[in-house]
Amino acid sequence: MRVAVLGVGLIGGSVALAARRRLAAEVVGWDADPAALEQALAGGVLDATAASPEACAPADVWVVAVPVAAAPSVAARACAAAGPEAVVTDVASTKAPIVAAVPDRHFIGGHPLAGAEAAGVAHAREDLFDGATWYLTPTPTSPGDLYERLHRFVGGLGALPAAIGHAEHDRVMAAVSHLPHVLANVLVERAADALGGEVLPPTGPSFRDATRVAGANPPLWAEIYAANAAALGEQIDAAIARLQDVRGRLGELEGWQAQTAARRRALLEVGLDGGPPEELRVAVPNRPGVVAELALTLGAAGINIADMSLSPAADNRTGVVALWVPAGDAPRARELILAKDLVV
Amino acid sequence: MRVAVLGVGLIGGSVALAARRRLAAEVVGWDADPAALEQALAGGVLDATAASPEACAPADVWVVAVPVAAAPSVAARACAAAGPEAVVTDVASTKAPIVAAVPDRHFIGGHPLAGAEAAGVAHAREDLFDGATWYLTPTPTSPGDLYERLHRFVGGLGALPAAIGHAEHDRVMAAVSHLPHVLANVLVERAADALGGEVLPPTGPSFRDATRVAGANPPLWAEIYAANAAALGEQIDAAIARLQDVRGRLGELEGWQAQTAARRRALLEVGLDGGPPEELRVAVPNRPGVVAELALTLGAAGINIADMSLSPAADNRTGVVALWVPAGDAPRARELILAKDLVV
Repeated sequence: MRVAVLGVGLIGGSVALAARRRLAAEVVGWDADPAALEQALAGGVLDATAASPEACAPADVWVVAVPVAAAPSVAARACAAAGPEAVVTDVASTKAPIVAAVPDRHFIGGHPLAGAEAAGVAHAREDLFDGATWYLTPTPTSPGDLYERLHRFVGGLGALPAAIGHAEHDRVMAAVSHLPHVLANVLVERAADALGGEVLPPTGPSFRDATRVAGANPPLWAEIYAANAAALGEQIDAAIARLQDVRGRLGELEGWQAQTAARRRALLEVGLDGGPPEELRVAVPNRPGVVAELALTLGAAGINIADMSLSPAADNRTGVVALWVPAGDAPRARELILAKDLVV
Repeated sequence: MRVAVLGVGLIGGSVALAARRRLAAEVVGWDADPAALEQALAGGVLDATAASPEACAPADVWVVAVPVAAAPSVAARACAAAGPEAVVTDVASTKAPIVAAVPDRHFIGGHPLAGAEAAGVAHAREDLFDGATWYLTPTPTSPGDLYERLHRFVGGLGALPAAIGHAEHDRVMAAVSHLPHVLANVLVERAADALGGEVLPPTGPSFRDATRVAGANPPLWAEIYAANAAALGEQIDAAIARLQDVRGRLGELEGWQAQTAARRRALLEVGLDGGPPEELRVAVPNRPGVVAELALTLGAAGINIADMSLSPAADNRTGVVALWVPAGDAPRARELILAKDLVV
């Protein structure tokens, strides 16, 4: 297998290292910064360098790991240079803009929930993605074989691939990650203004916890806010609406407080490990989108697909997808698949 | 010394235990619930019980530890029953309402930053206040000798007394404690709505940290929101205004993010331990409010008064206050005192 990594920073470099060492892949890299590229080659992160994205061809898997603003154009160049069987993906934390900007069958968006404080290829690690969720955002027209290849590739790096719709991805990230960063900033401001230089009262760990992410990595987070402005704006609007509502009934919030306690428990208690994988074999019609739809359905239900493999049937009109899911989740997965009019 | 504890729940019971064991005080208690009172007596928390607040007289220190809504009327009854040298205090987490409702020279508001998950006298502990900040809110007319007695009493329980203005107390608590609880609730709602029953993505500890206090103890927190509605409402308004501002410039937030990082560092880095105590002797005119003003000035600067003692001079027109402050803070304390036209 040959892998092209476009952008060799912390993430791209770690993809390259893991692909070389764990998948025995040949990895060719490109970066807009020749010094970073040279450093990656000298550090054993890459097998070879290329002078342009196009010069990385041929490759089976193309991973675009440049800064968010440059990702759509680099992904489009990768798609143009990719062979018919090649899959192109990216690692940006917002998915709707790039999916809209790169309407190419080769392209399937991705977002590993991994990172580190220190940026740059010098901090790249083979094990950066171990056990991390890696979102994949296939569309209804994503070819099943390309999705399968990408799923296995990401799993081979050590991550747990999970399918999710791109719009839903951005909405969920805005709610569970980007809005918490914005509100943490607001809390720091409110406290600093209220204290006016006086000492923070020792109110226990709650303020420290609530503001842990305040002011995190300013250039990176400014870029994330900007890239996900649409979905984040909606979450901020909803938060403002709720604050206005709460403001109007500060004397009668016991019900709200109790309801929130129950919702938090429900949020944090799900998603426990479902046990060792069990195989489910699903007969599917040979048309675009079926595999993506399956993956998205199970992903939405929180069922982790540990591995998958696609076998076309002799008649070429149908095929079989073998899915390995946690044994505890298998009955639920079976029900969800049957509800799609597919045969398990 | 004789101490009256009105309301023998977790806080009142712990005050009683610590006063008996650490200050060798005789503690008489009253509670609206006869069963709680009986339990406190049987458990060795009290020396004696009384059938009404008034029946606790005589006492040198009166501690009102009933639920917030009942505190002003119970405190007023204690003031009416208190002898000329007695000090009356409370433990409610909001101070402006009770200070306004009890304009009596005996009354000096208090708020220990201590508590526990489990309520009730059965969970009372002698060491509940060890090392905890205990806010005291003297007013400009609070008699110096009553403030001094209360300061020493609270310190004797194991707490660190700190003076703060009542309005400022409520504003600071709204910003650093009550608003974080409201925003944690909003975050849980946003995530639950965005996920619609799907599984919370493993975004690391940030969401868990940011929502740790969401839905905390609904009856207690509903009461706190209600009691501090004025100051909390102002903080919510300020948060809404900032969210509206941020919402309008999601593409250009790097400066805000960087500024917040610096402000959070500044907030969390101050207030380090200032070393062993050093004595400062201050000559003060013998008029009401001087001791309170001194305590408030040092409290606002984050300087902990480890102990204090008041000695009237022979002419009865002046006196000397001895203050023990951390040696590292002593030069700053001296400057602040000199700026008040007092002699150190």
